[in-house]
Order: sequence, then C-alpha cells, then structure tokens
Amino acid sequence: MNKCIHFITLGVSDMKASRIYYEALGWVASPMSQDDATFFQSGGQVLGLYRQDSLNQDTGLKDPKPGGLTLGVNLHSRKEVDDLYEQALKAGATVLKRPQATPWGGYVGYVADLDGHPWEFTYVAQLVPDESGVLTLP
Amino acid sequence: MNKCIHFITLGVSDMKASRIYYEALGWVASPMSQDDATFFQSGGQVLGLYRQDSLNQDTGLKDPKPGGLTLGVNLHSRKEVDDLYEQALKAGATVLKRPQATPWGGYVGYVADLDGHPWEFTYVAQLVPDESGVLTLP
Repeated sequence: MNKCIHFITLGVSDMKASRIYYEALGWVASPMSQDDATFFQSGGQVLGLYRQDSLNQDTGLKDPKPGGLTLGVNLHSRKEVDDLYEQALKAGATVLKRPQATPWGGYVGYVADLDGHPWEFTYVAQLVPDESGVLTLP
Repeated sequence: MNKCIHFITLGVSDMKASRIYYEALGWVASPMSQDDATFFQSGGQVLGLYRQDSLNQDTGLKDPKPGGLTLGVNLHSRKEVDDLYEQALKAGATVLKRPQATPWGGYVGYVADLDGHPWEFTYVAQLVPDESGVLTLP
C-alpha cells in the first residue's frame, strides 16, 4: 500500500460559508472546485469540502457526529499557535479548548470548524515541520 | 497559515488491534509509539492512533460518530483499488461500498476501519499521485 493519505474530504453543510472559512485560514481554492465541492492543494495532498449529504450517500453512513478524529497543524512556536487560534475564531470557528501546555511538553489548542470538525493547532519542539511543510517523526 | 495538515489522529477503542490493522495495510509504527498512542510516518505527515476516550478528553467532544469526513488513498489503477480493498477486508475492515465506477469518471470503494472511520480507495486518471506519494491538483 502507498503509505500516504492523499485526500481528506470534510463533509460540510454550507459550501460557500465553509469555503470562505478555509480561505480565511490561508487555503487557496483550486479552479477545479465546483458548486458542490471545493478543493484545496494542501502540501502534497488535497483538502476537499463536500456536501455532507452527498458524502453520506457515498459512504452509506448516516448522521455522522464529528470528533472521531482530529486534523492537526503543527507550528513553529507557541505564538504561532495563539495567532492561528485567534485567526480561526475570527473566521467563525468554535472554541473547544484554548491553547495550553500539555503534560507531555506540547502546547495545543482545539477548535471546531463550521461543521464541528475538530482541528488541533500544536507546537511541540520535537515535531516542527520543515520549510516545505513536511513533518518527520524523530 | 501553513497550508498543510501535519497530523491525522484517529480515535480507536483497541490500540493493539488497530495497530495490527494499519500495519497489515503497510504502515510502519514508529519507535515513538507508546501503549496509548501509535504513530506512523505517512508521506510528509503523521498518522496517529489514539485512545478515543483520551481524544475526547482533549477535544471535549462526546460520543463522536465517524463519517463526518473521509480519508482517501489515490491509486494507479482500478486493479490497485480492488487489491487494496480486499487487503483491507482481510485485515478486518467493513464494507461500506464496494469499488465501483462513479458518475464523474472515477473508480472508488469505501471501507470502515475497526472503529468505523471511513476510508476511500480511489482511482481517477487525473488524480494519480507521483512516485513520492504527492498528489497535485491539475
């Protein structure tokens, strides 16, 4: 198996609002995007927004409730975590847990996006991505 | 914002079983892994397994129900989709939708992992990753 995840597709209820939200956080929508799907190049993978009802038709799953997994962005300092956290709140995210030191030496905040998908903004000295965005385990 | 997702953390109920499942699909656990967390290098990002109750403590979310998003692996042919699909079933995944042609010209199958996280195995000629696993939008 190719040990990569190439596509992360978030179910959303309001495509326009969600597109605006992710654009406010710096993602740039591809011209491939359509009314019912938005695509963002995200490092070497693609972040997609897709209508939740269409996604449920594809997977056959009903009434999903976000929170079974988190998507994490690793940053270069506590200040970057604080800044991104505030930027997300301004764009419409909801506070889950404000940035704080963790018992394992990290500094982490959690927000929910417009549909409740939980995102984690993290600074931990041993897990800082390189300039191209690649994160390599020690 | 760094327009990358660096960490995907899946909540799991049985760490050992889930680690065996993802190892059966080709991911290699890092020596950083611990009893309550498993880490896999996955291209330029990290795929983590974490106890769902611990994840819920971190996010403050209760009773998540997987399906709000999908994680996709893009392959190089229909046969690779079929093969990976069978490999996942043998490793303990559940059928959501068997691989089939889509109206938009793709070939896609969906499985749920041991905790119900939906994964999408896809072949679509315009979206084939390069040799290093990077997927670039046209």
